[in-house]
Amino acid sequence: MSNGKYIFHGTIIDTPDPSTLRIRKQHICTVNKGKIEIIEPADSLNTVDLYRDYTIIHLSESQFICPGFVDLHCHAPQYRQVGSATEVPLLQWLDKFTFPNEARCADLSYARNLYTKLVSRLLRNGTTTVQYFATIHLEATKTLADICQEKGQRAYIGKVCADRNSPDFYIETTEESVRYTEEFINYVHRMEKGRDIAEMKALIHPVVTPRFVPTCSLDLLAQLGQLANKYDVHIQSHIAETADQVAFVHALHPDIGNGRDVAIFNQTGLLTNKAVFAHGVYLADDEVDHMIASGSAVASCPIANFLFSKGITAIERFRRKGLKVGLGTDVGGGYSSNMLPVVRAAVFGNRTMDFVSIDRSIAALPEFPEHKDPDIDFTFAFYLATLGGAHALNIDTHIGSFEIGKEFDALLVDCNKDDQAFDYWSEDESDIIFEKWVNAGDDRNIVGVWVQGRKVC
Amino acid sequence: MSNGKYIFHGTIIDTPDPSTLRIRKQHICTVNKGKIEIIEPADSLNTVDLYRDYTIIHLSESQFICPGFVDLHCHAPQYRQVGSATEVPLLQWLDKFTFPNEARCADLSYARNLYTKLVSRLLRNGTTTVQYFATIHLEATKTLADICQEKGQRAYIGKVCADRNSPDFYIETTEESVRYTEEFINYVHRMEKGRDIAEMKALIHPVVTPRFVPTCSLDLLAQLGQLANKYDVHIQSHIAETADQVAFVHALHPDIGNGRDVAIFNQTGLLTNKAVFAHGVYLADDEVDHMIASGSAVASCPIANFLFSKGITAIERFRRKGLKVGLGTDVGGGYSSNMLPVVRAAVFGNRTMDFVSIDRSIAALPEFPEHKDPDIDFTFAFYLATLGGAHALNIDTHIGSFEIGKEFDALLVDCNKDDQAFDYWSEDESDIIFEKWVNAGDDRNIVGVWVQGRKVC
Ligand SMILES: [Zn+2]
Ligand SMILES: [Zn+2]
Repeated sequence: MSNGKYIFHGTIIDTPDPSTLRIRKQHICTVNKGKIEIIEPADSLNTVDLYRDYTIIHLSESQFICPGFVDLHCHAPQYRQVGSATEVPLLQWLDKFTFPNEARCADLSYARNLYTKLVSRLLRNGTTTVQYFATIHLEATKTLADICQEKGQRAYIGKVCADRNSPDFYIETTEESVRYTEEFINYVHRMEKGRDIAEMKALIHPVVTPRFVPTCSLDLLAQLGQLANKYDVHIQSHIAETADQVAFVHALHPDIGNGRDVAIFNQTGLLTNKAVFAHGVYLADDEVDHMIASGSAVASCPIANFLFSKGITAIERFRRKGLKVGLGTDVGGGYSSNMLPVVRAAVFGNRTMDFVSIDRSIAALPEFPEHKDPDIDFTFAFYLATLGGAHALNIDTHIGSFEIGKEFDALLVDCNKDDQAFDYWSEDESDIIFEKWVNAGDDRNIVGVWVQGRKVC
Repeated sequence: MSNGKYIFHGTIIDTPDPSTLRIRKQHICTVNKGKIEIIEPADSLNTVDLYRDYTIIHLSESQFICPGFVDLHCHAPQYRQVGSATEVPLLQWLDKFTFPNEARCADLSYARNLYTKLVSRLLRNGTTTVQYFATIHLEATKTLADICQEKGQRAYIGKVCADRNSPDFYIETTEESVRYTEEFINYVHRMEKGRDIAEMKALIHPVVTPRFVPTCSLDLLAQLGQLANKYDVHIQSHIAETADQVAFVHALHPDIGNGRDVAIFNQTGLLTNKAVFAHGVYLADDEVDHMIASGSAVASCPIANFLFSKGITAIERFRRKGLKVGLGTDVGGGYSSNMLPVVRAAVFGNRTMDFVSIDRSIAALPEFPEHKDPDIDFTFAFYLATLGGAHALNIDTHIGSFEIGKEFDALLVDCNKDDQAFDYWSEDESDIIFEKWVNAGDDRNIVGVWVQGRKVC
């Protein structure tokens, strides 16, 4: 059994801000009690005696450590369908594939098997923090929390709430929804009790989780808002995801503010600084301002947005105004359980913002746009998938990059593995090696994963 | 040594047209002399005596065979930089990264090492046919042909031509360019002589390859047009890739037609039914009509287009008019040497065509678009990457799908490997398994690759 004390010696890569790929070569990073004690150039390391009982990990030239990924939006039960069912409109996708798959989690052994596969897969993919939507089932949701705790993943987990506009086989009463949510909050808080005393922050957190406005009565939303306030816990839902969803919400509540998601979440006490809303593709500027004032955040899921939203979260526009934004896989609306394809899709999505409008009716000269550096390059997208996601969850002070005192959520990446997806040239510099991994690598390059200083994979 | 006779017994998947995912379960496919002899339901197979010397490959429930990928556009020397250098404008990208890397192939041992890595990688990724740009160097380009032949990859290979607007260290005279191109054509034709007699079509084909209009004088283009005509060989170049490239061409040749690529290639004899042009993002409708009339085709490279073109090839619009379109990696403008990410990016690119225009100044209802099925789904994109690419090369009558008499260019895919990137459920149907592989799988699932009936990987 490891004592949790490590010395990493080699190249340390992170993104302390969206435009900085920070590469510290020939550095030492020591870890103890889950936290980073020291990061300094290797030659300055004090007497080795102090570190006698530390496990030393010498990184080769092809290896580096980087922060683990933060997946802000993952539907655990939809892992059953991930990679399929990508070709139907959102509301049909719910009825035909998603609700039936979620309903199956009433069977606890089914849920345990599925969630065990998922959490193992996400850890192997280097995702050290996940914000999950589970299902409406209390017991299966507890099981997800158990699995995350046992496997050591940092997890924000919500029992999904839905008391209307859902199929008969997958719906609950308002009273059940509220009661089970409160029970789940208490379950997780009991589970994590005592960790703070041991100087370790809680790993598992309950999240108040109205699925989205169409499936939650106003009464339910308001009671969930009260619960979130009573326990001071996180909140998650969906917001402005597709045009038909926005229209549906407006038809349901034309009289609440402007009849849109932000106004409704605000009125019901769910627009807080602990709230993260998925998508936000159709947010108007004043809604973004409203979210910023409340301190809430957006989880952009570019793969799902390409497939379902007919638009892309305007990440950089929102960030410039001051909104917190991170990335999510949106398993199974997005088909990847791995954050690297999400990082790449965030770059693609951003480039569409500058697409030239092409008049094909004549072969004239197109507008010749001034070159500007892309808003979101691989460094920025990696930031969003690590420190940006941590910021959205208000935990950027303790994870998301490597700083003394932060918790050690990290990946050991090796870009010279026999079976990897790209070729390695030893004369490439670290920044090139890192870029190649982000663009063309995968989980095969991840040879170690730590959460809170514990090796979990 | 295999006698090249196989019986595949199991699930056979291909896309005979863009909207059909054809799944033949419990079928037999026999292969002999590189070709498919029989495809029929397994229970109808005649006496096994006839097949005594065939190798029988029984596919499990998690396995299927599908056509190998056709990569219509791959710059072999840029494999050195693939996955990096994705954040600069096109013309700067050429000067800073690409020309220097291509120039290194003057060193034959460097080129041999690089090309060996590349061809091995592409085969392992399931790419059975590639159209390559090599470099301006005759010897290195011959080496690429040798490697492809030796490894058994179907390859269309061009010695790149460039007699202007290129750096001093990477340019040739008009005379050299033409002479080396002719020598390369003769080299490949000699190399492949005799194969037709053995009832096998040539695997390696020379391609007349002006890099793009800016780097080729009109005199050079015209002489290359004559060579292509003299030897009746394939042609490749770039067309309407970026706004600045279109503007550059117009500035060079304002008086040739409308001063754009299609007019210039046409005037110089390069717009033929054996020509494939990369990108075509900025093509006007009348240029597309012109290409259709000539029988030429477009290689869409969606990853490179997202990164560099500020626009996407309007694949379905062009196809509806009658243009032949396939897909290319555009290594290294695109960062993937694997066609699966290209297939996925083709879907993303297509979805951008239907993006809703969002007015963020007010939180009004967005336009509520009628749902229409997406033009390009995973089936269509897979078609483009296989039969569509074959069609662009005019070889759709002998590869790209599984039909009796066609050559056997195929992948054996297993979606239940221990180390794969997604989880397998045995109760999933074949169409779901296939979709999951296309969306979330990778080369780890490819357990066998055949070209012209020869097992190459
Ligand atoms: Zn979602
Ligand atoms: Zn190219």
